[in-house]
Amino acid sequence: MSTDEAAIPPSTRTRVRRVPQRGQYDRATLHAILDDAYLGHVAFADSEGVHCIPTACWREGDHLYVHGSNGSRLIKLAARGEQVCVSVTHLDGLVLARSAFNHSMNYRSAVIYGAFECVPEPHKITALDTFMEAIAPGRSREARPGNAKELAATTVLRISLDEASCKVRTGGPNDDEADMTLPVWAGVLPMALAPQPPIASTPHIATPEYVRQWKTAAGRTK
Amino acid sequence: MSTDEAAIPPSTRTRVRRVPQRGQYDRATLHAILDDAYLGHVAFADSEGVHCIPTACWREGDHLYVHGSNGSRLIKLAARGEQVCVSVTHLDGLVLARSAFNHSMNYRSAVIYGAFECVPEPHKITALDTFMEAIAPGRSREARPGNAKELAATTVLRISLDEASCKVRTGGPNDDEADMTLPVWAGVLPMALAPQPPIASTPHIATPEYVRQWKTAAGRTK
Repeated sequence: MSTDEAAIPPSTRTRVRRVPQRGQYDRATLHAILDDAYLGHVAFADSEGVHCIPTACWREGDHLYVHGSNGSRLIKLAARGEQVCVSVTHLDGLVLARSAFNHSMNYRSAVIYGAFECVPEPHKITALDTFMEAIAPGRSREARPGNAKELAATTVLRISLDEASCKVRTGGPNDDEADMTLPVWAGVLPMALAPQPPIASTPHIATPEYVRQWKTAAGRTK
Repeated sequence: MSTDEAAIPPSTRTRVRRVPQRGQYDRATLHAILDDAYLGHVAFADSEGVHCIPTACWREGDHLYVHGSNGSRLIKLAARGEQVCVSVTHLDGLVLARSAFNHSMNYRSAVIYGAFECVPEPHKITALDTFMEAIAPGRSREARPGNAKELAATTVLRISLDEASCKVRTGGPNDDEADMTLPVWAGVLPMALAPQPPIASTPHIATPEYVRQWKTAAGRTK
């Protein structure tokens, strides 16, 4: 397993060509983008064309994991080892420049190419517990675990992060020199996927720590 | 142009098969999901395989619009009228059920199939202004408009919403009857893409109304 500092050599598919200075190829950036996400979009092709399907995902080590019902089209196709592209994107703000043309967005985006592989039976429960712990630390010991039937109905897949790259834009607007004196407001309207107050279905049960934390968490939720 | 109430008949590609009761085929739901979004993911295929690329988007009438540099791979391929799939997803919350298996997410997702078409020159500026107005009402009259060179370097594309469907989950956990008495906290941890305080690059310029509104907007930003 690679360290966070290690770079992932760009492939012809992952090298960032538009605004190449926004390309980032270190594992630390990739891991941070994936760990901040609850879902990604998976592109795949079949006889009906290309598809782009959102699905929950989580990272462990140098793999991104997804799961789903054995009957799902995405899961069936991915389990066959077809080539896919997975994209995880965070929108961090709208960048308002003095000229219309230089308007932009701040974002952190990761793109992964390759094929999923099935996580075999003995590791399936561990992988699903890792997902639960990423969402709600401690909860995998509280919720009723999956029974044999539930686990048998679920496929867990993982894709290597060996062919992946990131594209990141941060900071304020980049205006043309000639526009700098225009009397136009410029700046950033930031945004973040922010936790909202929890909604309990079980008012008679004590609020777990991870739910209390959710209430007060600011901005980033993981 | 169809009314918001009209349904879009599902195609073999857009009919929701997993948890079909979450499928929604009315234009009002589709428009609302697209109008709440600043970006979507576009899946397309070329000789290197399938790709999944995030890009800014906006809706006008029964089309979804994107734009980009003429030189961008996505824009070049889309401009050739290749088949694509565009996905727009909002994550609204984590659904914590009493059993591990019944955990879920609340989301609003739209998937569009078809091919992009180029927006011809006379309509390009209008389309880009519509995008600017969706982001910051009034700003298209303030920022320096695109000049001939900038506009010539930009391609604006649109895709019809005629083959599209939505999948939406709302509400609390759906637990098995046998699990209802388990002493496990259950409920929803909601989240929303929320505006954060604006960052001005031009402190000497009066704050426009759309920037002041951003400060106080709660939850949904559009």
